[in-house]
Amino acid sequence: MPDEPLYGAGLWHFGQFRDRYATDGYGPPVTTLEAIDRAGQVGDLSVVDINYPFNPADTDVDALQQRLRANGLRAIALTPEIYTRTFCRGGFTNPDPGIRRQAIELVSDAADLARRLGCDYVKLWPGQDGWDYPFQADYREIWKLSIDAVRELAQRHPDLRFAIEYKPREPRNRMTFSSAARTLLAIDEMEVPNVGILLDFGHSLYGLESPAEAAGMILARDKLYAIDVNDNFRGWDDDMVVGSVHLVETFEFFHTLQQAGWNGVWQLDQFPFREDHVEAARAGIDVMRTIWRALQILDVKALAEAQSRQDALAAQRIARSALLGAERGETR
Amino acid sequence: MPDEPLYGAGLWHFGQFRDRYATDGYGPPVTTLEAIDRAGQVGDLSVVDINYPFNPADTDVDALQQRLRANGLRAIALTPEIYTRTFCRGGFTNPDPGIRRQAIELVSDAADLARRLGCDYVKLWPGQDGWDYPFQADYREIWKLSIDAVRELAQRHPDLRFAIEYKPREPRNRMTFSSAARTLLAIDEMEVPNVGILLDFGHSLYGLESPAEAAGMILARDKLYAIDVNDNFRGWDDDMVVGSVHLVETFEFFHTLQQAGWNGVWQLDQFPFREDHVEAARAGIDVMRTIWRALQILDVKALAEAQSRQDALAAQRIARSALLGAERGETR
Amino acid sequence: MPDEPLYGAGLWHFGQFRDRYATDGYGPPVTTLEAIDRAGQVGDLSVVDINYPFNPADTDVDALQQRLRANGLRAIALTPEIYTRTFCRGGFTNPDPGIRRQAIELVSDAADLARRLGCDYVKLWPGQDGWDYPFQADYREIWKLSIDAVRELAQRHPDLRFAIEYKPREPRNRMTFSSAARTLLAIDEMEVPNVGILLDFGHSLYGLESPAEAAGMILARDKLYAIDVNDNFRGWDDDMVVGSVHLVETFEFFHTLQQAGWNGVWQLDQFPFREDHVEAARAGIDVMRTIWRALQILDVKALAEAQSRQDALAAQRIARSALLGAERGETR
Amino acid sequence: MPDEPLYGAGLWHFGQFRDRYATDGYGPPVTTLEAIDRAGQVGDLSVVDINYPFNPADTDVDALQQRLRANGLRAIALTPEIYTRTFCRGGFTNPDPGIRRQAIELVSDAADLARRLGCDYVKLWPGQDGWDYPFQADYREIWKLSIDAVRELAQRHPDLRFAIEYKPREPRNRMTFSSAARTLLAIDEMEVPNVGILLDFGHSLYGLESPAEAAGMILARDKLYAIDVNDNFRGWDDDMVVGSVHLVETFEFFHTLQQAGWNGVWQLDQFPFREDHVEAARAGIDVMRTIWRALQILDVKALAEAQSRQDALAAQRIARSALLGAERGETR
Repeated sequence: MPDEPLYGAGLWHFGQFRDRYATDGYGPPVTTLEAIDRAGQVGDLSVVDINYPFNPADTDVDALQQRLRANGLRAIALTPEIYTRTFCRGGFTNPDPGIRRQAIELVSDAADLARRLGCDYVKLWPGQDGWDYPFQADYREIWKLSIDAVRELAQRHPDLRFAIEYKPREPRNRMTFSSAARTLLAIDEMEVPNVGILLDFGHSLYGLESPAEAAGMILARDKLYAIDVNDNFRGWDDDMVVGSVHLVETFEFFHTLQQAGWNGVWQLDQFPFREDHVEAARAGIDVMRTIWRALQILDVKALAEAQSRQDALAAQRIARSALLGAERGETR
Repeated sequence: MPDEPLYGAGLWHFGQFRDRYATDGYGPPVTTLEAIDRAGQVGDLSVVDINYPFNPADTDVDALQQRLRANGLRAIALTPEIYTRTFCRGGFTNPDPGIRRQAIELVSDAADLARRLGCDYVKLWPGQDGWDYPFQADYREIWKLSIDAVRELAQRHPDLRFAIEYKPREPRNRMTFSSAARTLLAIDEMEVPNVGILLDFGHSLYGLESPAEAAGMILARDKLYAIDVNDNFRGWDDDMVVGSVHLVETFEFFHTLQQAGWNGVWQLDQFPFREDHVEAARAGIDVMRTIWRALQILDVKALAEAQSRQDALAAQRIARSALLGAERGETR
Repeated sequence: MPDEPLYGAGLWHFGQFRDRYATDGYGPPVTTLEAIDRAGQVGDLSVVDINYPFNPADTDVDALQQRLRANGLRAIALTPEIYTRTFCRGGFTNPDPGIRRQAIELVSDAADLARRLGCDYVKLWPGQDGWDYPFQADYREIWKLSIDAVRELAQRHPDLRFAIEYKPREPRNRMTFSSAARTLLAIDEMEVPNVGILLDFGHSLYGLESPAEAAGMILARDKLYAIDVNDNFRGWDDDMVVGSVHLVETFEFFHTLQQAGWNGVWQLDQFPFREDHVEAARAGIDVMRTIWRALQILDVKALAEAQSRQDALAAQRIARSALLGAERGETR
Repeated sequence: MPDEPLYGAGLWHFGQFRDRYATDGYGPPVTTLEAIDRAGQVGDLSVVDINYPFNPADTDVDALQQRLRANGLRAIALTPEIYTRTFCRGGFTNPDPGIRRQAIELVSDAADLARRLGCDYVKLWPGQDGWDYPFQADYREIWKLSIDAVRELAQRHPDLRFAIEYKPREPRNRMTFSSAARTLLAIDEMEVPNVGILLDFGHSLYGLESPAEAAGMILARDKLYAIDVNDNFRGWDDDMVVGSVHLVETFEFFHTLQQAGWNGVWQLDQFPFREDHVEAARAGIDVMRTIWRALQILDVKALAEAQSRQDALAAQRIARSALLGAERGETR
């Protein structure tokens, strides 16, 4: 039996959540170091994706590295926060060139630090880059600014990889990098070799994609740098625990990755607003483990044969049999 | 020509917005008194719906009353904040009976103050009452707790009116009072005379209702205590400026109110995250004024005749003609 | 171990499907008698819900009864087709009173026949009753006509039960009986004892309800006459095979029925446009059997305890454990 | 003042509609020649897009050409019906290579005829090409088959243009060419110069795109061969009359086309199931005319200035002023 994948999580999973109603937060503030300790408590995490700047901003990098090691963790990525108040009218696409510059420099600083921390990639999630109202924006200009900023960053840090996490909307009503296909088109226009995609399963799901298909399209162009998993009700980025709603499609998603020989980290991006953060991570990993076991017993050959006939009933039966049999711990 | 309606706004329209990304807020903090001043600057607002507790909590009530008067405003309602950290796992339906009691008492305190301020109603928006995950809740228990709490409040304050603002979801993935019909069923079960509904146009729209139809159903049972208007893209409560997307259905909504002889306040519930708060309110009022003028020139008789034949083309033509002619300031 | 439920299906599951593109049908025409034979081939169906008029309309009733018996089937219900060309601008709510009368009489004829066939209920699915455009309809009139028609039918046939199948939309853009709560309000207004609800899982799902919760609300009022199951992607009534997308929520739905002691038929309403009709029914039954087994091993007490704390993680773990363990055929 | 655009319509607008409930059709059958006469009655149509094969299939081409001329019409395009029963499990992507070949040959025949009729393009709408169920398909194979088929057709008919009409779903639960970006990626892979896009406003709208933005992206790559307009409630392809719901975004869409100097036909793709076909077309043209007038008075310079600041309130005010002033027939 092959080795289990490595599991990871966005460090924000262990931080304080707010929203526009519970403005005082779903729980007390959490420092970056405290969040690392919580991640360590999960017991099965190997890597974390860390928001930058740290909380507090003057957190010592060596102390952070040590704290990661003490918890058996590694920083797989940094996520520069180009979506806070300063950037609320846009990061890369802010109408103010000074703010755009600030966004690029913040990412560049994060890139320097990512290099020092030995990260696999810098994550770009330009959540404030897009538009809210019909007629508000010159869309071609927004597109161009988005592409130019990422290209500049990729060229300034040719030794690093930048992973764009696309998302249909939120916080902006519409985001520039909103789908796998749009992001691939943008990457084509950038003409740099070190920009790829982080596919968030939930974003894909509520963006009307079939996540497994979107993954396949990105893999075919060799641009799948990372993945995040979670779940939702297909209307919004609910960031629920993996598999709590869409077990079948989550299974299909990981099957696609496995068939392509992709061996990156299986990473959580959950927002357990009202749940214990450590237990929620354990629950997500528990589901991913079940899926991993299901992949071991999945009759891949029979499935491929059914798919060659586009036989939905047979394909579903084969998949369900593996999924529901995964608890038995069988191997083929 | 009849008098124009009174215009109002939720006071939060002029406060600080946060969300789960811009956790430092879309702009600096705003006190309740400062927000009142901003509301006053709009120039056309007569009433405001005020969050309770005030910000800061020890704001003097007399000072507040005076500040309202100084700005030509009146408190039409108080909205007790039963959705902050304390209540994040539920207000009326929290699994902890102590928190449930706290939620009821907070509303009761707000009711006492609403009486003192001469408000028209106390608004109930139990945004944390519902569920997030399949299997999480005993739905009948959640339903019963929601109803019992509102009934208790209505009975303790028989001289006041309580308006439930229903909403499909957010912050909970699913809310108890999620639609006009569900809320009417709940009110039936309460068997008290002083509970009604605040219909938020946007909530109705993204909840798959036809807002004008929902208003008609509530009006037929004499339970329409208040309305809020705004706009969205039908997938989420975007709280955009009135009429920025759905001019036609907003017009139909106000037409229904007018035909029923409803003469309450035309009230804004917009969240101008990235816009000037005062200008956004003026924009909303500007659109409502256009609609009000359109109502004056709408050929109500021809419309009713077209509707008796369910003639969509004729009805739309009549409505559009009034809407697009409203700028001319004609009267019939 | 308790007895397995009876399984049933809408007979249309075995007929010819059309849509607005494949206007020549997804396969050749199928008579009512042929469809009964196909239903018989499934092997596990006990009852069918039959469209009326039959195809062809002059199908002999005795021959039909015999054909049912020969296939081990019974007619659980008739579904009068009040949504074909004659009724395309409305059945109960058609602007033409003559057509409204025709719709009522067609249902009344179906009721007479249902009595003769020993059906459990007459199904009402007024799919053409609603509206398409803003401003098109006098909503209160549409509501009244819908209620009056059903009341009249219930009063003319006091010995029979009428089950309204609600649905958010399709073929009308918006339907009158669009949700559980709206239909319960309508039934209240009818003031007759023999009108209830057929809850279609898929309609509930894409209507933004939690199907288990909707079932609970209907059960609490003793109005759940029947259920249909299928699956979809939450945006439309895709009528896919049961459990192909939403295994967890389908399980929750049946758990709610079982806890309430509801012991009606587990009935399929699938549209296998491109699949073998008999095999698709078998697939649906196979999933329902898995769920039935999962119900036997579900730790109901632990689940209730978790729900009393609204503990999503624990409740999901308990449910998932039963679902994924169902293949082992364990009993508690 | 510049000339008004030419108006067009899909000829199906004037045919018989069916769906899965009114299987006997929303009205009687209509031949191709009869539909042409109805299109002629509209009075303002210059071109039609005609389904192929004709109804009946042996309709004489010269007779058809003459009938078009007699009605003042020209065939702007042919739409080969690669979505009827034969192709219900896929046209270009059918698991049966024989059916795939049939689909390609049907389109090729249509191309030959389009050449003879002097059409501007052949429309490709592979509505049955996609998938329904998770796990059903080898997505990469579906993608490849879709691209190979279109490339072959483009190479066999290098003198003609082929316009792909993308659509998120229906009749398939998920379609291959589902968005502007995906279709552009596919066209890139085809490496032929004569394949472009027909953008259907409604498809874009319910596919979570901003239609004006999608148009801009296609225009930037010089691939906008044609457009269709209609309206919907953002959840499904309702094919309602233009502007009946989304006046503002329809206006923005045409503004984008005008600013880009695009001067193609403004074409209707409405399905007036329950309305008079001719009157519904007139209604659509009436709205388009209003929008055209609004474009003449739109303060383009002020709008561009507002957009350069991404000032939603100003941009909306400028746009609304033109839209609501369009009835006055002013010019700038």
